[in-house]
Amino acid sequence: MTHNNESQYTRVNISDKFWKNYQTLINDVVIPYQWDALNDNLPDTEPSHAIENFKIAAGELDGEFYGMVFQDSDVTKWLEAVAYSLANKPDPSLENLADDVIQLIGKVQCDNGYINTYFSVKEPDAKWHNLCECHELYCAGHLIEAAVAYYQTTGKDALLNIACRFADHIDQVFGHKPDQLLGYPGHPEVELALMRLYEVTEQPRYLDLCNFFVEQRGQSPHYYDEEYQRRGQTSYWHVHGPAWMVKDKAYSQAHLPLTEQKVAVGHAVRFVYLLTGVAHLARLSGDQEKVAICKTLWQDMVNKQMYVTGGIGSQSEGESFSCEYDLPNDTAYTETCASIGLMMFANRMLQLDTDSHYSDVMERALYNTVLAGMAMDGKHFFYVNPLEVHPSSIPHNHIYDHVKPVRQRWFGCACCPPNIARIIGSLGNYLYTVKQDTVLTNLYIGSTSTLATEYGNLTITQRGDYPWKETITLCIDESPNQAISLGFRIPDWCRQPSMTVNGNPYSLENAVENGYALINQVWQSGDTITLTLPMETLIIRGHEKLRHSAGKISVQRGPLVYCIEEADNGSELYNLRLDSDAEFTVIQGEGLFEGKTLLKTQAVKKLCPQSGEASLYRYRSSKPQWVSQPLTLIPYFTWANRGEGEMRVWITEKE
Amino acid sequence: MTHNNESQYTRVNISDKFWKNYQTLINDVVIPYQWDALNDNLPDTEPSHAIENFKIAAGELDGEFYGMVFQDSDVTKWLEAVAYSLANKPDPSLENLADDVIQLIGKVQCDNGYINTYFSVKEPDAKWHNLCECHELYCAGHLIEAAVAYYQTTGKDALLNIACRFADHIDQVFGHKPDQLLGYPGHPEVELALMRLYEVTEQPRYLDLCNFFVEQRGQSPHYYDEEYQRRGQTSYWHVHGPAWMVKDKAYSQAHLPLTEQKVAVGHAVRFVYLLTGVAHLARLSGDQEKVAICKTLWQDMVNKQMYVTGGIGSQSEGESFSCEYDLPNDTAYTETCASIGLMMFANRMLQLDTDSHYSDVMERALYNTVLAGMAMDGKHFFYVNPLEVHPSSIPHNHIYDHVKPVRQRWFGCACCPPNIARIIGSLGNYLYTVKQDTVLTNLYIGSTSTLATEYGNLTITQRGDYPWKETITLCIDESPNQAISLGFRIPDWCRQPSMTVNGNPYSLENAVENGYALINQVWQSGDTITLTLPMETLIIRGHEKLRHSAGKISVQRGPLVYCIEEADNGSELYNLRLDSDAEFTVIQGEGLFEGKTLLKTQAVKKLCPQSGEASLYRYRSSKPQWVSQPLTLIPYFTWANRGEGEMRVWITEKE
Repeated sequence: MTHNNESQYTRVNISDKFWKNYQTLINDVVIPYQWDALNDNLPDTEPSHAIENFKIAAGELDGEFYGMVFQDSDVTKWLEAVAYSLANKPDPSLENLADDVIQLIGKVQCDNGYINTYFSVKEPDAKWHNLCECHELYCAGHLIEAAVAYYQTTGKDALLNIACRFADHIDQVFGHKPDQLLGYPGHPEVELALMRLYEVTEQPRYLDLCNFFVEQRGQSPHYYDEEYQRRGQTSYWHVHGPAWMVKDKAYSQAHLPLTEQKVAVGHAVRFVYLLTGVAHLARLSGDQEKVAICKTLWQDMVNKQMYVTGGIGSQSEGESFSCEYDLPNDTAYTETCASIGLMMFANRMLQLDTDSHYSDVMERALYNTVLAGMAMDGKHFFYVNPLEVHPSSIPHNHIYDHVKPVRQRWFGCACCPPNIARIIGSLGNYLYTVKQDTVLTNLYIGSTSTLATEYGNLTITQRGDYPWKETITLCIDESPNQAISLGFRIPDWCRQPSMTVNGNPYSLENAVENGYALINQVWQSGDTITLTLPMETLIIRGHEKLRHSAGKISVQRGPLVYCIEEADNGSELYNLRLDSDAEFTVIQGEGLFEGKTLLKTQAVKKLCPQSGEASLYRYRSSKPQWVSQPLTLIPYFTWANRGEGEMRVWITEKE
Repeated sequence: MTHNNESQYTRVNISDKFWKNYQTLINDVVIPYQWDALNDNLPDTEPSHAIENFKIAAGELDGEFYGMVFQDSDVTKWLEAVAYSLANKPDPSLENLADDVIQLIGKVQCDNGYINTYFSVKEPDAKWHNLCECHELYCAGHLIEAAVAYYQTTGKDALLNIACRFADHIDQVFGHKPDQLLGYPGHPEVELALMRLYEVTEQPRYLDLCNFFVEQRGQSPHYYDEEYQRRGQTSYWHVHGPAWMVKDKAYSQAHLPLTEQKVAVGHAVRFVYLLTGVAHLARLSGDQEKVAICKTLWQDMVNKQMYVTGGIGSQSEGESFSCEYDLPNDTAYTETCASIGLMMFANRMLQLDTDSHYSDVMERALYNTVLAGMAMDGKHFFYVNPLEVHPSSIPHNHIYDHVKPVRQRWFGCACCPPNIARIIGSLGNYLYTVKQDTVLTNLYIGSTSTLATEYGNLTITQRGDYPWKETITLCIDESPNQAISLGFRIPDWCRQPSMTVNGNPYSLENAVENGYALINQVWQSGDTITLTLPMETLIIRGHEKLRHSAGKISVQRGPLVYCIEEADNGSELYNLRLDSDAEFTVIQGEGLFEGKTLLKTQAVKKLCPQSGEASLYRYRSSKPQWVSQPLTLIPYFTWANRGEGEMRVWITEKE
């Protein structure tokens, strides 16, 4: 079994002020709240019925299935979040509750291993008839992920055994034998889950099954067309007309075999979930063709279709990618879940290929779009994370139908909030990448972690006040008595990093490889590395083909992209101009921004002497006159915490 | 009977080089082509079946109705275009053909006067059951308009008699009596048609019926809800879910009584068609409350929601207005028909209220969006007229689903092409506004017109080379022997107009009232007025609340808004900067642009030394460097005649 940090999950203990606050929110607010939601104990909310579906399927209750065809995944995503929460903060009553849910899932499991309450209760004869549209394998994936996590964090294998029986059943149903199905899921997820199951169980059939799903994808004759004919041309979804999901194969990443895919298209979450599984598979199978596919698609996504906030998915329709260099700021979809999936994909790529390019993108997604997805109270969420909003137009122009100017109460949604709970709860998985005798530090988050190198455990403690402060201290608590390479990511935004080892300056001049400062030595308990990553305030310009950021600049400090809001800077933000040479003052936020670093500078605003005039268009108006105006920038992830107002990330440059 | 220029239609004979070419295209190309379409004689096209529907309804053929519920209007709009064509260019065989069609319509007319092939053939028991969705009154309106036009241009009253019988039937069906319906059309059109019928027939019941429809609109309890319940909650359209048209009452301008409407909302074509009828009614009924409504809604539309090209309707969804100052350039809908309707509304406002504001807008719509709607070959058309296109993104981002980068073959569409044929054919109606002893010249188009003033006929000949050249000569051919006020519109874009009368300078200093230079005198045959309207190249800036044109300028010369295209200026038009002080050279176009005036100037383009680099976002890139680049601007209406390419009207200003 190849070691990797994922199986080491329980050994990472986050103590960081910034992140502990979020993990506490997840433990104390989000998880109990979601449990109430799953049990329909929240007033004024859409019923969930998710637990009741399981009770009905288990024969404990009479009733009808209710909810989305993938409603089961709400329960297993909750269980996965609970698993991480228990590791971060033991809670016997929560663990008992989770054990009860696991027992209930066990009761729902069919004799052959199958689990899905929608099909068991509502369409028992239609199992596996509609892979394209009906999410059975997606739900299976989330059950498997929950099982792996629960096993890793609690050591209990009840759910893992259930998951294995289910996976074994899937392995019977799908394959190349005459009585097997040649299909694969419309919404990827089971692929990455099977890889996680393989890592825990070391059963090659799970890797092989993942490989089967990956390689069947997009083959001709097309499975989705065939099953559509077989089931009598019935459709589950009719949002965009009958069988639209069957027809729009790119939506499901099934338009071509993966070997022929060159660009990121279709549903952004499906894309990153699939590629997360493929990258994991490519590494553990050593399949170089799949490695190349992952790199090609990663490059297209990141170099041509990613927002500066680490958001992906330019459009609401199909929650999908558009094409190269088409990144509108106000109609962006940039779903929170897509950036979570991007982090997962980046993490797998890091395990495959040592390059800080992946961890830079992972950090960008985390500190900007993912964090923006949740309000500071842990109870309000964004699905959609635009880079520019003009609230008064939103209710009137349907190109903004998907855009909310402020975060919504979380229980109105079903997918992003539990995903945020999962990613924050499992953040320990993203800090380090362990490769034999090498330990790469990807994220600078206060924590104590025990990592399994090929020579034995390395325990390391990080301290600092990231993302606000530039100094990180890393202390070796325990190390094998053999040389270990420690790699420290030098972020792409950092120009003059410096390092000391046990107080002595350590030259980085020739020490940085693929973006990591590497030190190979036998480490002693007590060895201390101090890393200083000067956080200049940086001006960012977009690629010359990015028309939506042409003539504009954005501002970044450390990993944080900043934005301007009407609350600080008045309305008509498009009439402001910022000089790229402007001096920025770093200030400490107050009130809502307590503990956060804001930026102040001077901009100019267009004088509008004709503002009393009604006419829309003016001939011979004089050249614009400008007046100086102070400008306050706040971290993008904190936007929309003060009610509705204009916001923009890209500010027109004073050229 | 109040005189107005509409009834004088046959007396306007356009001889203008610019417009004669378009009228010839309509006569020689569009009308025969459309006839083929109506008879399904075009290969590779969607069947129309429109004439066949009439034959089936007349009992001449067996078969089923086919097409849109408003398919009949394609025939009557064709007839109306034919009427104008016959006036512009007599054609006995075309007239015979039209007479045959009129005879066929007569056969379809029910004993009670009703005409609609959809309901007669398909749902004879459902007549008038679904005013909200089913366009019966809309089709009636187009039949009436065709009848009025055909009567005015040919003197034949067969269709007029049919129309009157139909209108009389409608008058029986609708009204306040107990056995009458209190409804009104989902798509306004019959209102303006009834006013035209009233002018020709002088029958007050048609004005009263128009008034009834206008005043019933938006009353509570809501007629659309009541008829929806009465017909058992059935819906004809399901595009946006069941009964969406019933629910979205603003779409049909039926959300509020007109007296309570303050802003232009909903379907832009419905809005301007309705207001055209209301303005006509307000004038002839002398209803000052309706006059005020027209002015309020006109102001909102023009001062807050109109594009610089005279386009209206900011969004594709519902082909509708958005809200004040929300005018995106690339996702604009700006339907050709909406600008045609805007011209109709403007023309009625001019008759109501002497103010060149209306004629300025009318001219802006005509020379920019309306003309852009048709290719120079008369066979390709735009429904949607964006102010910015980036063709390579269009197939990939669904916010552009409605946008075509080049004009489409006309027969793929059913509404805009015949509407362009109607407006160009009837352009004579827009040149002058006659009010008792006053004749206002609105448009400068070479023509000879005989206009009925209260003292008798005035015949006037215009010569010039508008919109390219600044001098217009107007010659009085015939005049009553009493003082007539001749008013000449001084366009809003013209700063230093000058005039001579019979060769003698005529001071305009105190002569301009409400935008018209007025000369009151007894005119003699041979009197000649020369108007010089210097056509500077003008820089336009948008209102400070127009975020989509912030930091940008557009260029206008005479009535023409100019744009830049990739064909002349290369790609990445967003990386160009234009100084508002730049010198423009007026040049004569060649080839495709033969006879047209283009503009040349110098702009600067951003140097992109990093263009080989892949990364989307760049820290610490140097301030932009600029290189001079010649810039060619073409009239907006001529865009997209050279294949697909980037285009923009608003050019980033070098500030």
